Amino acid sequence: MSVQLAIDPAHSAVLSMDFSTAIVSIYSPDPQSFLARTASVLKQARSSGITVIHVRVGFRPKLPEINPRNTLFSAIKNSVKHQQLFEGAAGEIHPAVAPEGDDISVTKHRASAFTGTDLDMILRANDIDTLILFGIATSGVVLTVRHAADADYRLVVIKDCCADLDAEVHACLVDKVFPRQATVLSASEFLEGLKSIKPASEP
Amino acid sequence: MSVQLAIDPAHSAVLSMDFSTAIVSIYSPDPQSFLARTASVLKQARSSGITVIHVRVGFRPKLPEINPRNTLFSAIKNSVKHQQLFEGAAGEIHPAVAPEGDDISVTKHRASAFTGTDLDMILRANDIDTLILFGIATSGVVLTVRHAADADYRLVVIKDCCADLDAEVHACLVDKVFPRQATVLSASEFLEGLKSIKPASEP
Amino acid sequence: MSVQLAIDPAHSAVLSMDFSTAIVSIYSPDPQSFLARTASVLKQARSSGITVIHVRVGFRPKLPEINPRNTLFSAIKNSVKHQQLFEGAAGEIHPAVAPEGDDISVTKHRASAFTGTDLDMILRANDIDTLILFGIATSGVVLTVRHAADADYRLVVIKDCCADLDAEVHACLVDKVFPRQATVLSASEFLEGLKSIKPASEP
Amino acid sequence: MSVQLAIDPAHSAVLSMDFSTAIVSIYSPDPQSFLARTASVLKQARSSGITVIHVRVGFRPKLPEINPRNTLFSAIKNSVKHQQLFEGAAGEIHPAVAPEGDDISVTKHRASAFTGTDLDMILRANDIDTLILFGIATSGVVLTVRHAADADYRLVVIKDCCADLDAEVHACLVDKVFPRQATVLSASEFLEGLKSIKPASEP
Repeated sequence: MSVQLAIDPAHSAVLSMDFSTAIVSIYSPDPQSFLARTASVLKQARSSGITVIHVRVGFRPKLPEINPRNTLFSAIKNSVKHQQLFEGAAGEIHPAVAPEGDDISVTKHRASAFTGTDLDMILRANDIDTLILFGIATSGVVLTVRHAADADYRLVVIKDCCADLDAEVHACLVDKVFPRQATVLSASEFLEGLKSIKPASEP
Repeated sequence: MSVQLAIDPAHSAVLSMDFSTAIVSIYSPDPQSFLARTASVLKQARSSGITVIHVRVGFRPKLPEINPRNTLFSAIKNSVKHQQLFEGAAGEIHPAVAPEGDDISVTKHRASAFTGTDLDMILRANDIDTLILFGIATSGVVLTVRHAADADYRLVVIKDCCADLDAEVHACLVDKVFPRQATVLSASEFLEGLKSIKPASEP
Repeated sequence: MSVQLAIDPAHSAVLSMDFSTAIVSIYSPDPQSFLARTASVLKQARSSGITVIHVRVGFRPKLPEINPRNTLFSAIKNSVKHQQLFEGAAGEIHPAVAPEGDDISVTKHRASAFTGTDLDMILRANDIDTLILFGIATSGVVLTVRHAADADYRLVVIKDCCADLDAEVHACLVDKVFPRQATVLSASEFLEGLKSIKPASEP
Repeated sequence: MSVQLAIDPAHSAVLSMDFSTAIVSIYSPDPQSFLARTASVLKQARSSGITVIHVRVGFRPKLPEINPRNTLFSAIKNSVKHQQLFEGAAGEIHPAVAPEGDDISVTKHRASAFTGTDLDMILRANDIDTLILFGIATSGVVLTVRHAADADYRLVVIKDCCADLDAEVHACLVDKVFPRQATVLSASEFLEGLKSIKPASEP
């Protein structure tokens, strides 16, 4: 299949979300090929002149960002064991898909990459209007996808760079929910589409 | 089943979303019982002292709120026929579940009830920390649910006051995605739970 | 003096703030010339193809938008007399500078035109990156100016379309605080500058 | 004069803004007494059980947060010399008023402490409704004060822990603009007022 990818690298960013070492090991059934695929998307995006942004969860000591009313995140605040998933090497982005060169890193404290972060500020500052998104878990990515749709970004979701413990939820989101707001592609379709796009800096 | 509903009416609000006459007629397979059920939730919420907030989509003339990059909403901007769904009687909230008494109405121009509205301002101004949500379509409600979770509201979703054209999407969201952030109840469970809660003004 | 106005009408909007009949009568020492001057700015902006947006304060019945902790606005909520300034003809924009044609109206419930409104959504949807601002009182305009600066809009303030009860505060803001973020012009300088700009639709 | 300070330490936070070593040395005419006064406010706030939050400007390498349209901040992005004010020891908070113990640090990239930061998230997560603010320059503090007023925080400004290169601007803001939204106190009035407040943890 020929994929026509109508994106302008100078106004596009890849959002690689929640690829910390701990999260990858928990959510991905086949980490090696999952990481290799994602690494190759990041590499080609960079060489095409697309901005690459990494988003991960992180906290200050004693997690002052967390509200006791927030079920999901107060479970982390109340458990030293849960917190260890976000600290030290476990909490860092897996070396296979880690930030390189001019990549930008954003730390979030909630599910959406936009909530309480400077992500929207950075995107606007760089005149970015198109996002290529993927991450773990798929059921977490849905919020950022829709948050971004409401903020008027053009959206591409790379489905096989998303992973979820529940295969049915993954399929439902990727096949039925995401397509209402986003172009949903496989990594190979995206890479194929990138080939026909010249980086802005080339003649 | 006995439902223990741990909510304080003085700090709770019902969010009834997108019950316009046109949307109800498109999305609900059995509008009569769907509306009767929802009306009864609204009525009991009011008499329990819970704030009731109605959210619907609406636009200024010529839809200056819509960005051409927003696929979902520019489809409305570009089609007079689509716009008619949000105008006049079709766009008003269905009389069976319409605002009454001190109910509050919020007009939105995007999928989330929070995006570009004064909803969060109103909730904070009234010290509301718990939301009881439902609406059409279920796949639209998911964004507001997660937006609200990220904003640290306690959440109850009333599943049979949600409706979606795709039964599989409805089931996946209601059974698997919503429960990660919210207590998911049927209308009858919610009404049963309300009985054990005295309104704040009673002795 | 020759004014070089480096604005592109297709990406610019005038923000005319808080010109309700009651507010004009309270704050302006010489309403007739003040309104005539402002009307002429609005008229020339429209005929140059600049979007015109009017912002005024307004509330739902019983003011559910107001938090008792907000000193400024709870004073309004607690006083029927204060509320009358925002209701009926008194609360409407003065007829001399009222919305015309495709002008856009925004209702706010706080000091800044951005807080809890769809103003930023509308500006982004229309690819507007430059704001020409003025309003009453000058000490209220300062917040929207700085809010807009933080949101990366290019800014022009028209100083003699601002008014404040305290002449010293007006002078301090207009002469010393606004120039740090905005180009500060008189109405006649702005109108002079507009002459050299052709509307986008002209050949 | 006896000051009645109606604050509850468990729901209050001190915001100490822009006390980096470089900014202090540029803006304060008498750094030694200025820093001693501020340090004593921080110390007493901590021992009264008030949360202390430090806010400073900082950037990622190459300043991707900055929009070329933002006059104030693109001047920094375009000047290596300006950037040095925010890097290394110069950009760190002055040792005399630096974070201690459980103090929280927030990094901003715009004028307001709220723009593009997790400050509001942290304040809400900790049920904080009252802010005691001060910082450099006074003309920068005004935005955070009004931003916070619009977000319904109760406000106290400590005037002699603010400094501005222009004495007239400082006086105008502190004497005439801040009092419209905030209680304006001297450091000694604040410290005097604190004495009558028992920390929440005491019997």
